[in-house]
Amino acid sequence: MEKSFEKRGLAKKSENISDWYNDVVLRAGLCDYTDVKGSMIIKPYGYSIWENIQKELDQKFKNDGVQNCYFPMLIPMSLILKEKEHVEGFAPELLTVDKIGKEELNDPLVLRPTSETIMYKAFANWIQGYRDLPIKINQWCNIFRAEKRTYPFIRTSEFLWQEGHCAFSNKEDNLQMVFKALNWYKEVYEDFLGISVYLGLKSQSEKFAGAKNTYSIEIVTPNGKALQAGTSHDLSDNFSKAFGVNFVDEKGEKQNVFQDSFGLSTRSIAALVLAHGDDSGLVIPPRVAPIQVVIIPITKKNQDNNMINDFSNKVEKVLKDKGIRVFVDNNDIHSLGYKINEWELKGVPIRIEVGNNEVEKQIVKLVRRDDFSKQDVEINDVEDKINCVLEDIQNNLFKKSEELKEQKTKNADNYDDFKKLIDEGYFVRSYFCEEKECEAKIKEETKAVTRCLEFDQMNDDDIDGKCIYCGKKAKHKWLFGKSY
Amino acid sequence: MEKSFEKRGLAKKSENISDWYNDVVLRAGLCDYTDVKGSMIIKPYGYSIWENIQKELDQKFKNDGVQNCYFPMLIPMSLILKEKEHVEGFAPELLTVDKIGKEELNDPLVLRPTSETIMYKAFANWIQGYRDLPIKINQWCNIFRAEKRTYPFIRTSEFLWQEGHCAFSNKEDNLQMVFKALNWYKEVYEDFLGISVYLGLKSQSEKFAGAKNTYSIEIVTPNGKALQAGTSHDLSDNFSKAFGVNFVDEKGEKQNVFQDSFGLSTRSIAALVLAHGDDSGLVIPPRVAPIQVVIIPITKKNQDNNMINDFSNKVEKVLKDKGIRVFVDNNDIHSLGYKINEWELKGVPIRIEVGNNEVEKQIVKLVRRDDFSKQDVEINDVEDKINCVLEDIQNNLFKKSEELKEQKTKNADNYDDFKKLIDEGYFVRSYFCEEKECEAKIKEETKAVTRCLEFDQMNDDDIDGKCIYCGKKAKHKWLFGKSY
Repeated sequence: MEKSFEKRGLAKKSENISDWYNDVVLRAGLCDYTDVKGSMIIKPYGYSIWENIQKELDQKFKNDGVQNCYFPMLIPMSLILKEKEHVEGFAPELLTVDKIGKEELNDPLVLRPTSETIMYKAFANWIQGYRDLPIKINQWCNIFRAEKRTYPFIRTSEFLWQEGHCAFSNKEDNLQMVFKALNWYKEVYEDFLGISVYLGLKSQSEKFAGAKNTYSIEIVTPNGKALQAGTSHDLSDNFSKAFGVNFVDEKGEKQNVFQDSFGLSTRSIAALVLAHGDDSGLVIPPRVAPIQVVIIPITKKNQDNNMINDFSNKVEKVLKDKGIRVFVDNNDIHSLGYKINEWELKGVPIRIEVGNNEVEKQIVKLVRRDDFSKQDVEINDVEDKINCVLEDIQNNLFKKSEELKEQKTKNADNYDDFKKLIDEGYFVRSYFCEEKECEAKIKEETKAVTRCLEFDQMNDDDIDGKCIYCGKKAKHKWLFGKSY
Repeated sequence: MEKSFEKRGLAKKSENISDWYNDVVLRAGLCDYTDVKGSMIIKPYGYSIWENIQKELDQKFKNDGVQNCYFPMLIPMSLILKEKEHVEGFAPELLTVDKIGKEELNDPLVLRPTSETIMYKAFANWIQGYRDLPIKINQWCNIFRAEKRTYPFIRTSEFLWQEGHCAFSNKEDNLQMVFKALNWYKEVYEDFLGISVYLGLKSQSEKFAGAKNTYSIEIVTPNGKALQAGTSHDLSDNFSKAFGVNFVDEKGEKQNVFQDSFGLSTRSIAALVLAHGDDSGLVIPPRVAPIQVVIIPITKKNQDNNMINDFSNKVEKVLKDKGIRVFVDNNDIHSLGYKINEWELKGVPIRIEVGNNEVEKQIVKLVRRDDFSKQDVEINDVEDKINCVLEDIQNNLFKKSEELKEQKTKNADNYDDFKKLIDEGYFVRSYFCEEKECEAKIKEETKAVTRCLEFDQMNDDDIDGKCIYCGKKAKHKWLFGKSY
């Protein structure tokens, strides 16, 4: 490895991933703390990652006819109270505005913890007949859920997300949308962020408050903990009954609509950091990287640097013309060593160095961020080679992520093994009876929570299965893990 | 005109522009009301206009190196209190969170009315030496200012905007940025939204609370009222003194930074609606239009419609391939008349009709939204012709807007004429002594407010000028108008 972690004073990822995470998100310029309890600043470098994720996901929405819109952030408490499970789930986390000026509000205004209630009130007005369906909308916005223990990007009292909300005339179309959204998230994580994920059904204890079923994206972090990284909820007709969202069907009969909602947040940035980072800092997969290639001209004070600068600019132009996001670091304050450290810390996939030697030989020195390997590339091959290497880095990071996921997931046939594996930092797949009491006991005793029932375990109606905890009949193996 | 306003029950713009405005923003699907006092829903069609404005402006920011980021929405009251003029200006409009759960907050959290305070607290940490400058950042976010009388898009308690915030080591660079931002806004209004604007300096009474000077974009509505449609503030070192934003310069001396901020909001959508709409609804300039061309296949129930549909799809493909935003309305529920009404209401620049006659002659019928003129276009000429017509509509709308601006602006040499013209619904340009007392009196007596001192009036140091109100020496002619 080229630069040791001590040099930049980062905690070592393999030794203390929590400290490492806190160091790296701050020092790579992803975020900063503020005086506001539980909140954080998303700095330009972090925000540009979010913009890239937004662009990727937003295009999927638009291609499918999901339309963006914006609903008020302040939701009357009376609306939140309308769906019983919903308010029970969210009550402890709500922030409210209780007065405006000196006027005490009879109906306090809640800072949206999610927007089902205010949106479905509007849906009830918008939908009259079957011709008004489906409705498929989305909003990109800020969300508030009071948190006591906060981690940057993982758990903050304010965060950014998108929330999609659809209404259909029938169960089948609605369920199709639930899975379509979940699959978009899978694609974003696997193909774009290079992170291998689990997909499945949440348990009834862990589902979204008010949903019939929640399906989620679950990510194993390198220390074997779990990040819930995107959810898609089958709301069935739970909310449409509570909010009177109904329509007159082809036969002239009144029916409740079926609804779903789905969300992915800035937590995806945490997943990215944890999945790929190393002791030198971030490692960002090329497709999402704000800067894909950084060019460092190795200029010197006592020489004519024109040739080096011209050569660097030429390489920049060739790459830019090919749509590659490239940046030339011709800052003349910092040393080469400092620059290398900084760009490694920021996780830029490829570094190109151009000095006298390179100009003379008409080559560039190319250094990969994922494995620190170096190669010389002839100037005429630059654009093809860079494209290949970017693609290779993307694939390599995903492959590593897949391996980590496999390696960090174990099966357990008895509760002793289960506890041991959870303690050692694994996702554990075990038979579970799906009873809330058992789930609560397991959580209490091991801190492990059901992550999801994977789709490929769902069809597997095993007649011999016995719950890892109570020994009663269990139809499926569930994934368990500790929350990050 | 093809369709009368009575047919769709819209108020008539020329007779009652307020009613017309309220009707058209709702019925064209730009927004909707909610139970939340002072708030509104931005519906997909309205939001897609906002997305187009965002894209246009954001590209200007990025090209200039202004970077997007995100700061917490909740700002401790103690921070707001730090700049004296700032808090005096905003105090009456602030919404606050006073407790979280049952815990009463010592320092209530304000829902951001603008973000100078929380951002500059961070700037003070980020900036140490001259090498840390300039900082040029922006955020797209929601903003809260309690309003009693609200109009959709014009004045609501929550709205969306962007706020740019920069810090420089010197006055000159800072002032250059102030004008650069103002000019971006001018370009967005004139070249993109097709609205001719005034630019100039706000009076000291009307400037942003905490700024040294505010420069603004002012728009004359068709009834001669004023919309402040974008502002750029020279904050000088007012905030940097209050927040301790300083740096060590090249000589090793500590200096305060100079700062500016600039904002443009969803009010720009109101400007668009008011500027171009007519008795049939919205008229959207092609560059910002979510749909530039709508194709209506005139199918009939008792015939084979394949040829018509194929022909329509062929036209759609030709236009899409050219990057034109096109939509085929092949909904089979509504009549042709209904569809024409709807697409006129939504202001789509060009409507294309394809029936048996068109297929037979291999032509399309093209109808312009701006003047309702019709023409037949041969299928082979479609893409060129459409591009020409879109360009022509864009230019035509801007020309009309320029004419309106000229027509609705008058000069007055005495207070009687001034009052009469203001009453009749004009912007009035008159000498004004720039004394706060005079300004207040004029406002009290006529409801007219200084809009701005235009740049081309600024150089005109007339030695004979006398204030329209007090008769004392006046160096410049100012623009006055009633706020919308």
